[in-house]
Formats: sequence, C-alpha cells, structure tokens
Amino acid sequence: MAKQKKAPRPKAQTPKGFRDYFGAEVTQRTEMLHAIAGVYHRYGFEALESAAVETVEALGKFLPDVDRPNEGVFAWQEFDEKDNGDWMALRYDLTAPLARVYAQHRNDLPTPYRRFAMGPVWRNEKPGPGRYRQFYQCDADTVGTASMAADAEICMMLSDTLETVGIPRGDYLVRINNRKVLNGVLEAMGLPEGDGARDNVLRTIDKFDKVGEAGVRELLTKGRLDASGAYIDGVGLSDEQAAPVLAFLTSKATDTAGTLANLRAAVGDSKVGAEGIAELEQIGEFLTAGGYGPDRIEIDPSVVRGLGYYTGPVYEAELTFEILDDKGRKRQFGSVAGGGRYDDLVKRFTGQEVPATGVSIGVDRLLAALREKGRITAEPKGPVVVTVMDKKRMADYQEMVAELRNAGIRAEVYLGNPKNFGNQLKYADKRNSPIAIIEGGDEKEQGVVQIKDLILGAKIAESATLEEWKERPSQFQVPRDQLVAKVREILDGQDQ
Amino acid sequence: MAKQKKAPRPKAQTPKGFRDYFGAEVTQRTEMLHAIAGVYHRYGFEALESAAVETVEALGKFLPDVDRPNEGVFAWQEFDEKDNGDWMALRYDLTAPLARVYAQHRNDLPTPYRRFAMGPVWRNEKPGPGRYRQFYQCDADTVGTASMAADAEICMMLSDTLETVGIPRGDYLVRINNRKVLNGVLEAMGLPEGDGARDNVLRTIDKFDKVGEAGVRELLTKGRLDASGAYIDGVGLSDEQAAPVLAFLTSKATDTAGTLANLRAAVGDSKVGAEGIAELEQIGEFLTAGGYGPDRIEIDPSVVRGLGYYTGPVYEAELTFEILDDKGRKRQFGSVAGGGRYDDLVKRFTGQEVPATGVSIGVDRLLAALREKGRITAEPKGPVVVTVMDKKRMADYQEMVAELRNAGIRAEVYLGNPKNFGNQLKYADKRNSPIAIIEGGDEKEQGVVQIKDLILGAKIAESATLEEWKERPSQFQVPRDQLVAKVREILDGQDQ
Repeated sequence: MAKQKKAPRPKAQTPKGFRDYFGAEVTQRTEMLHAIAGVYHRYGFEALESAAVETVEALGKFLPDVDRPNEGVFAWQEFDEKDNGDWMALRYDLTAPLARVYAQHRNDLPTPYRRFAMGPVWRNEKPGPGRYRQFYQCDADTVGTASMAADAEICMMLSDTLETVGIPRGDYLVRINNRKVLNGVLEAMGLPEGDGARDNVLRTIDKFDKVGEAGVRELLTKGRLDASGAYIDGVGLSDEQAAPVLAFLTSKATDTAGTLANLRAAVGDSKVGAEGIAELEQIGEFLTAGGYGPDRIEIDPSVVRGLGYYTGPVYEAELTFEILDDKGRKRQFGSVAGGGRYDDLVKRFTGQEVPATGVSIGVDRLLAALREKGRITAEPKGPVVVTVMDKKRMADYQEMVAELRNAGIRAEVYLGNPKNFGNQLKYADKRNSPIAIIEGGDEKEQGVVQIKDLILGAKIAESATLEEWKERPSQFQVPRDQLVAKVREILDGQDQ
Repeated sequence: MAKQKKAPRPKAQTPKGFRDYFGAEVTQRTEMLHAIAGVYHRYGFEALESAAVETVEALGKFLPDVDRPNEGVFAWQEFDEKDNGDWMALRYDLTAPLARVYAQHRNDLPTPYRRFAMGPVWRNEKPGPGRYRQFYQCDADTVGTASMAADAEICMMLSDTLETVGIPRGDYLVRINNRKVLNGVLEAMGLPEGDGARDNVLRTIDKFDKVGEAGVRELLTKGRLDASGAYIDGVGLSDEQAAPVLAFLTSKATDTAGTLANLRAAVGDSKVGAEGIAELEQIGEFLTAGGYGPDRIEIDPSVVRGLGYYTGPVYEAELTFEILDDKGRKRQFGSVAGGGRYDDLVKRFTGQEVPATGVSIGVDRLLAALREKGRITAEPKGPVVVTVMDKKRMADYQEMVAELRNAGIRAEVYLGNPKNFGNQLKYADKRNSPIAIIEGGDEKEQGVVQIKDLILGAKIAESATLEEWKERPSQFQVPRDQLVAKVREILDGQDQ
C-alpha cells in the first residue's frame, strides 16, 4: 500500500487586513452603538438592518470586469449551472444598501423616511497599519424631504449623540457649510457648472484643512512647493480670480449674521449662491429654536470635507480638545462624523430624484477619543474568581459562585487544574480580577471564607510600607454567610 | 456620432435568500442580544468579535475544488498578480472562528477561556421559505477545561438567560444527556467503536424526536413504513439487541437518582458508560449546589440532538408551552438552544486536543417565541408627531420637538409637504404614533396647543357610542408651556 501523505496543518491566522476584537474592545463598542441608537430612536429614526451581501448590480459603483471583480469590493459569482449567476458583493458602506432598500420598499415606507443603520462594511483594499478591510459605520439619514429642518435636525441629533456617549459640551463642535454657496461663488467668478477649472478649484479647496489659506491661494494661482520639496502645479487663476474662493473659505465671523453677510458679499448676484445662504439662514433659525447655540453647532464656511460630493448643506463634527500625536506634538483630535445632503439617492433605480440628507459617525475614532481622554477604561474590571482549594468540593465553590451571580456580581469559579494555587492567582491576575475567594479545609471547618482584595493587594505590593501594609490588610476572613455582602462592600470601595 | 446606448436601470432587490429587517425587528433583536450578553458577562465570559471573513484554509470544512468553491460557503479568491491568492470565505458559524482564534492567540488568552460571540453567519445554500442565507448566532463556549463544572455552568447560564429575556420558569426546560453513556450502551451491546452498525444506530436514534419509541424500535430492527407510505429499511438488529438502546432513551425516572440507576443498568460493565454516568452525576451535584432544580434543568436521556456530533455531555433548551402550528394544531414550541462538549476544537491547527464545551442560542426562534406569547409587541409605539400647520413657522415646531426630545420623549416634526393635513395624520398613523401635536394660527395667538391622543382616538372611532365619545375626548387643548407635561401624562395613561 502506498503511504498516505498527511495534509499539512492549516495556519491559524486572521486573514490579511482583518482583526479580532477581544473583551472590552467589543463590549465598549456595543455600549456606544447602544447609546447612539437610543438618541437616534428618540429623534424618531427607525432601525434598518440589511444583509451584508448585495448584488453588484445594486451596489453599482463597482462593476466586475470580464471575469474578475473590481478590487474595491469583495465579490463573487453565484453558482449557476450555466455559469451565468449574479455577481454578489459585501457592502462597502451603508448608503448604497439604503438606496436599494428605499427604491425597493418605498411604497411601504413612511415619507419622509428617517432610518439609522449600524454595522460592519467591507473594503477590498490593500491593508495598511491601522487600516482594516472590515470596519463599523453608524449612519442616520432622512430620505424624501428637501426641508432644511431635516438637516438641522441631524446636526442637533449629532450634538446630542456626542454628549450622550461622553464628549462634554465644549469638547466638540458641529460645523455646517453649504455646497450651493460655493457654487454661487464659482458662478460669481465666471466659472459656471461644467467648466473644467471648476473641478480643479473643488479639488484644491479640499486641501484647505491641510495647507491653510496661504496654501490654497498658491494652489489656486501659480502653484506651490510642498513640504517634501516637490512643486505642485497651480490651477492658474489670477490673484483676483482666487480672491472670492478665499473670501468664502474665511467668511466665518463672530456670529451667524456676520458670517451670512460675508457670504452674501462673496456670491454676488448668483441665484444658487443666494439659495445656499437662505438654506444656512433657515438652519440657523431652527438651531436657535431648538436651543442649540454656537457653543454646540455653528455655521462655518471653512468646512470643506465632502463639499465636492454633497449637493447642499454639509456638516461635520469635530472634537476640539488636543491630544499628543505619535511625535509628542499637540494637535486637535479632529473629525469624528460627517455628512450632508445628496439628491440622487435612488435615481439609479427609479429615475426619480429623491432628496436625502444624512450623517455617518466614525465609531472607532469616537471610541479612541474617549479612551484618549480616559473617559472609558481600556481594561475594565474582570470577574470575582472563586478559587478551588479542594477539587472534591467543587460543589461548594459552585454554590458560592451562584450566590454571587444571583446577586448581580460578575463571578466565576476557577476551572483549570487547581493543583497549583499560584496558577489560580496568575489566572485571576490575567482576568483583571478585583477579588479572589478562598475556602480551604480549615475555613470550611470554621464556616468562614477568605476574601482577597486583589486591587488593594497590588497597590500595597507596589508601594506600601510595612506599617501601611499592617494597617490596611487586603485579605479578610468573614463568616461564609457574609460572602456576598463583603464582596459587594469591597467592590463598592474599589469603585470610589 | 453613434447613439449611446443607455445602461438599463439596476433592479432594486434584496439578493435571493437574504432579507431586510426594519424597525422593531432590529431593535428587539438588539435588545435581546444585549440582555443575553449581560448574563454571559455576569458569568465571567468575555466577548469576542472576529471578522466575517476567514481564509477557507482556516475554516477547513469546506474546501474549494479546482476553481469553484464548495457550495456550502460564500467564497472568493484574493486578487493576486499571479492568480495565486488565498481563498477567502464568509464564516458559516461562530465555532470555526473560535477554533482559529484560540489556536492563534492561545498564549495570550486565559486558560480556561470563557468567550461569547454574537453575530451573523452565512450559508451558501438554496434559499427556501423562512430559510435565509444570513442569520444570527449567539454562542458561549469554555475552552481548555475537561471539568464538568464548565458544562453545568453553561446549563445554569442558559437557564438564567431564558428567564432574563422573558421566558418564565415553567415555560422552559434545559435537558442534559451524555454521549459517553450512549457509547457505553453500544459497547454493552457488542457494537464497539468503528463498527459500521454503530453509525446506523446513531443515525436512527436521531429520529427519536420524530418517530418516538415504537418508531425507533422498528427502525433499529426490521424497518418501518413512514407517513408517506414509503418503506424505510431497518438496521437489522434483533429485538433483544435493540432493547438496551431503547432502555437508554427511555431511562428518565422521576428523579435524577432514579434516572442514573436506570442508566447504570443500561451500560452494564462498559467503562466509558460508567464514565458518562459519573459525569452526569457530577453535573447533577453542581446544579443542586447552584440551586438549579429539575424545574429548570434536568438529566434526560431522551435528548438526542447532537449526540452524534458531541463527545460528552449534550444539552438542549426547550420551550415547553404549546403554540398552534400552521394547520391550527397544538404543538410544543420546542428547542431554542443546544450545545455540548467537543474535544477536537483546535487539533486541526496545533495537533493538540483541547477540550471545550459550549452552547448556541437560536436568537430568531427565541424572538419568535416571545412574540408568539405576546411578551414583546410586534409593532411598538412610534414617535409623537408634531404636525406642521404653517410652513413658515417651522421654527416654532422645531422648538416643540426639541422640548419633547430633551424630556426623553420620542418625537419628530412632520418633514413632508405640509399642505394636506390629512397626509400628516396618515403619516402619523403609518408611524404608529401615539400622539399628534397641532398648533395652528389661532392656537399660536391664544398661546395653546392641541394634543390628540391617537390611540384613544382610534379606539373611539372603532367602537364608542356618541355618549362615550363626548365623555372621553381624545383631543386636549393645553397652554403651550404645559405641552411636555400633558404629553407625558397621556403617554403614561396609554401604557397602563
């Protein structure tokens, strides 16, 4: 008989560009999504959960070429006897599925339709450091109304959301701009829609965040040396021509009325420009009526993210506190959410224009911000660990752990090999356990248990003098029937 | 110039075998997962969230043939210049990713490792009625311990979970069996491991749920006419040979001691059988110590699901109340969770046997059960709708809705075209709105608002006499500054 070749063992590896999330990483994100969903719900938004999979036809943006799908999405062909199956793909955002769902179910959905969606999306991109091919999005959109009240509402909701998840007022700002005002400026400059220079101007102002006013002026005119020493060609406008764009970007005044007056000057006679300003004015009015002052939401024409993509109001939430970057330099934390108005949501499917406006929150960035500020602990408390001093008395330990759990206390019994007690304490340490329970034969006989405050114990081990150590014991002996009460007392003390 | 052919519009359709979930369908499932996660956490289990995507190599079960992946999973080949990329697939359950994660991170994870995972899984199967290609699983497993305390703990946790999500004691039962006891019975019958007849017996007892004792007796011996009139061949055992298997399946007595005594008789001298009985005895002891009586968890050798797959204890949670099936016949709701012990979790990766035990809850079946029993409402209350009587006074309505939301009341302002007031009430109806707020010009002048109790209004419209209608008005006029208080009063009244 020929020798059978053994199959090699498979590699245990997360696929490239994906990652595993453990413990608090998962529960903290879940808690945050839960809190955000609560605010969205209060605003009348309805949850929508579509499948991870869509037909490539419905997703639209990415189409498979002859026999290999575009790299932007993860796609495959449905099995079909005639090799003629549909191409399917994992969704790359939550907006494309919303478009499909709204087009498909529009007769059953209320109009306007306020919906929120949260979940992973997938991008078939080259993975890089900190850049994953699966990540969470958390969107809210209002479909089917052109009313500025919808845009204002989403900005107020965004403000409430940030405060609800733990960003206090003063540490964030929702800023609003309007694409139509920019269009008006371009029109006033003699660059009507369809003019090639217009796209160049749009691309250039997108760099305003990075290069500032002087940089944009250079890029709009003669060009600019970038930090690496490379020369970036300019759009070729004269200084005079570039001036209105810069006036637009820097038109923010100390109050909304002042900002709007500056914008009016910048758009001149442009009709679309005036329309955009009226929209901002309306939004401002609704914000005031809702009680949301400029300490939370403000009109700020320097917001440029998304101006090229959206068709009307554009909004962004920024965290304004400073953090230290990789090189120890202070910088603002920056944007954690953005959105705006877009009018072609379902046109691909139905031919009709349906106005919509919506926001997407970067959940992982928001979590990072809260961790940065120490508002959520990276390593939260583990369970109370009931140690096993005598394998034969496992039932006794089961009784203790059930008592603790029934009292709402997170607890577990040690289930590894109990022979080596040191291993049990090492386990408790790895679990970030606040308390260990010990009941050996002597204790059992005397009807008592030992309760070890592991957090205090660690502190004492680190820094205490002998006197302190004597004064503040970290291990207590209590009657067995006071187990739950004493554990609760220690836990409460640790939380203070 | 040649005419450009317009691309046909894409179809707006959920891909075959997938579905969209709206509103309460989503939030009720989220709430349930949240409640379950709370119990799992209390038991010391840690969340794990792996990506939806694994390499086909790591998933193992399904391997792509020459150039088309197996139909069981959704799979695709990573792009690679040399057409040599890895095959990737969507996970088909949460156990295969756990195996990969544990093998990969075992040196960093605590031992034993208690983990829970919740999320969608995907099956590339032919879709059928009520059978979807994406569905939720909700698993908890303990990896790295052979202790029966782990199995007992998961059964107690399952019991707590069911009560926490709203299944009262008495409406469910967690039942435990053990594969080793069955192995002992087969050994006692002279069917050792590796005997072909053994597989046939295992396959047959899997039908015990459906065909009962008499049916299994026929199938183990001479064969059986099934309901459709087809003849099913039997395994060919004599009545005498079949007897121990049937004794095993029907060995449940009025108490655990009686059941164990029956099992002892059934396994005779078999060592593995005795081991299985000792395991059940230990589990019984831990359950008693934890305070979980036979009204919640019991040892029941008639549990056969999974006996072929698992290697030790097997457990199942059943809802014991009756529902009406499609044809109006009463039947038990049945199983909502199942699991057991398996010892080869990571062997494929590392070569080592690592014992593990775990459970999977059928979240969607559990939700269906709660809806069936009226414990969660299929159509929960919508938001309070602030109607728009005068488009120019949108800021006034924004003020009202902000007040309501700030008071924690779910509310929205009507954002459609306000011209036709009837459409606004139709909208409120579609939203399942409890209350509509109306403030026309007259009200504004008088400083009042109209508050319409839509639920009471609907009831009155349905059934009330004129007298009742007069006595119980469903519309109230209150001073504007009492808006929030009156809305809350009506909402509270509706909830009673």
